Amino acid sequence: MPLTRRHFINKSSSALGLAALSVTLPSGKLFADHHQNSGKNIGIALVGLGSYAMGELAPGLRKTSHCHLSGLVTGTPSKKERYGRQYEIGDEHIYDYDTYDRIAHDPAIDAVYVVLPNSMHAEYSIRAAEAGKHVICEKPMAVSVEECQKMIDACKANGVTLNIGYRLHHDPYHDVFRKLAAEQPHGPAKFVQTEFAFRTGNPDQWRLKRALAGGGAMMDVGIYCIQAARYTTAEEPVAVTAREYKTDPVKFAEVDETIVWEMEFPSGAVAACNTSYNYRAERLHVGYRDDNFEAELSPAYIYRNLKGRVGSEPLDFGNPPQQSLHMDAIAQSINSGVPLTTTGEEGMQDMRIIEAIYRSIANNGARTPINT
Amino acid sequence: MPLTRRHFINKSSSALGLAALSVTLPSGKLFADHHQNSGKNIGIALVGLGSYAMGELAPGLRKTSHCHLSGLVTGTPSKKERYGRQYEIGDEHIYDYDTYDRIAHDPAIDAVYVVLPNSMHAEYSIRAAEAGKHVICEKPMAVSVEECQKMIDACKANGVTLNIGYRLHHDPYHDVFRKLAAEQPHGPAKFVQTEFAFRTGNPDQWRLKRALAGGGAMMDVGIYCIQAARYTTAEEPVAVTAREYKTDPVKFAEVDETIVWEMEFPSGAVAACNTSYNYRAERLHVGYRDDNFEAELSPAYIYRNLKGRVGSEPLDFGNPPQQSLHMDAIAQSINSGVPLTTTGEEGMQDMRIIEAIYRSIANNGARTPINT
Repeated sequence: MPLTRRHFINKSSSALGLAALSVTLPSGKLFADHHQNSGKNIGIALVGLGSYAMGELAPGLRKTSHCHLSGLVTGTPSKKERYGRQYEIGDEHIYDYDTYDRIAHDPAIDAVYVVLPNSMHAEYSIRAAEAGKHVICEKPMAVSVEECQKMIDACKANGVTLNIGYRLHHDPYHDVFRKLAAEQPHGPAKFVQTEFAFRTGNPDQWRLKRALAGGGAMMDVGIYCIQAARYTTAEEPVAVTAREYKTDPVKFAEVDETIVWEMEFPSGAVAACNTSYNYRAERLHVGYRDDNFEAELSPAYIYRNLKGRVGSEPLDFGNPPQQSLHMDAIAQSINSGVPLTTTGEEGMQDMRIIEAIYRSIANNGARTPINT
Repeated sequence: MPLTRRHFINKSSSALGLAALSVTLPSGKLFADHHQNSGKNIGIALVGLGSYAMGELAPGLRKTSHCHLSGLVTGTPSKKERYGRQYEIGDEHIYDYDTYDRIAHDPAIDAVYVVLPNSMHAEYSIRAAEAGKHVICEKPMAVSVEECQKMIDACKANGVTLNIGYRLHHDPYHDVFRKLAAEQPHGPAKFVQTEFAFRTGNPDQWRLKRALAGGGAMMDVGIYCIQAARYTTAEEPVAVTAREYKTDPVKFAEVDETIVWEMEFPSGAVAACNTSYNYRAERLHVGYRDDNFEAELSPAYIYRNLKGRVGSEPLDFGNPPQQSLHMDAIAQSINSGVPLTTTGEEGMQDMRIIEAIYRSIANNGARTPINT
């Protein structure tokens, strides 16, 4: 019988083979509170109306209880009209990149969610902070550690919160792995294998331009593996080794195609990871110390239809609305003043690791310490 | 609906989403012929009566049609008695390591299957060849390329066949991957991720002694990953990079614990692999060029209960008797004179790759060409 949220809440954990794993998941409260309001309902403006913003975030904001879509920022006139009408956003709450800073005077907008190409994250996050708006920035947080620090500084200086779009921090499938790391019913993780890769289509997309993307598959989807390796071990890596394999130097002239890397953790745990824009793969697998115990998610990182198992028991939480849960958690955090785990510091730590990975590649796969 | 052997044989392949994959699997004939006799029924002596020999091979020889168990070689008197009685092997066909060479004069023994610790494979295979007996040798073939060459030479000089215990060359789940490589209905493999690892128990076992095992997890189970990377790409690797991670230097003082490595193929395909004696993991995943197409086996390498999918379609061939199928194929090959794919040269190629992996580790993960 598959494990469901109800199991976690109602059954004794020992009956589940999850041994000492505690029965309340971190996001259990979110599920329960999902339709209870407390504090201000936060108005969020989406900045950049691409496929993720309008395919996932805007629809997700229709399912939230603590926040709502209250503004749009786009450089494309046809999108202003289309999405303004579709989401009933008045013209006075729709901006382009020239008028963006005027959000400062728009009381309907409490926060922005920056969903622009990676190299624009820092600028538009900082401008939002300077306009006094809370910032949610899609991952990767920026294209360098230096930019990440500036974003953190700007938000701090302007007294606004900064969260990165790590939606899986509020996903019950991934919560199980955090619990396995925190409570260690099967001992610590010894080895993590994880990968996220897909084949890019359109060769003209911004993801393949260094000036916009800052990097390739690593920046876009490899970052999920870095995240997962960190929270499945509950440790910070001390060093990486990495190699790039480029099989299509024309299409991937400007950005990385396939990167294979390892992360070493203080306990001796190792994460072996790969990411690519040239094949499809998506998995998180953890081997634990005790009893040949394994846990796995595959697919692991997409928006829905995750599948997994803990030992031989399947995990089934249905399809939690990842983006809605995360945005509601952010709204509650803004109201309560209690920070989440998806802070700017969290985003900057991933960027430190990414920079070490690129340094290792440049040094023929040499073991490269993580700068802290 | 899961794919079954019947599907492959009876249905048009296009209906399966397996596109142009031909409907007859390589081992299809074996399944059909399984209970038809042709040529001599080959008598096989097991050399070394450990858990694999007596847990899998001897029972497997009760299900074969072209060969049977006809002799036992062991240094343990209690095993002589116990297994002689259990398998109805007369005392005159039971040998110890001093009397081993007398198999030359035993007409009941046509072939031996060497299931000793790795470092003894070469000696006992060569002595069998010199006794005029066909040789089946468990993987890894030996502990060095040099030994492999001597085994090949001895078998050639004595006019006997040499096969390595690569049971998955006659397994229908793995046949699907060979077909996907040969016929390329989804283009060539771009990236292979594969791993085989388990946590060793008893610290006194021969697997942890360099003098007996020649190496650690790589020799024992990593070799399955090397095999799979080769047959899922249908290419020979040109170079490897490898790193060892040793988290328990006491238990694994003599042999490798965890190795993470990549194999580069001429087409640009890459295989990312890991093996260990200190966690459990077992998977073969291939990302193909076209349409984000994936195929997977997990578990991939054990004796039974393999599970897999080609795209989104599950594979289900039940539990084919891997060892029986392989030993029957060897017996038929001995009778027909037509060699199999599990030759000594095949075993030696894996050993070339293993030697390159150990050289790469010794050189801090440097890219290391495969010697040919």
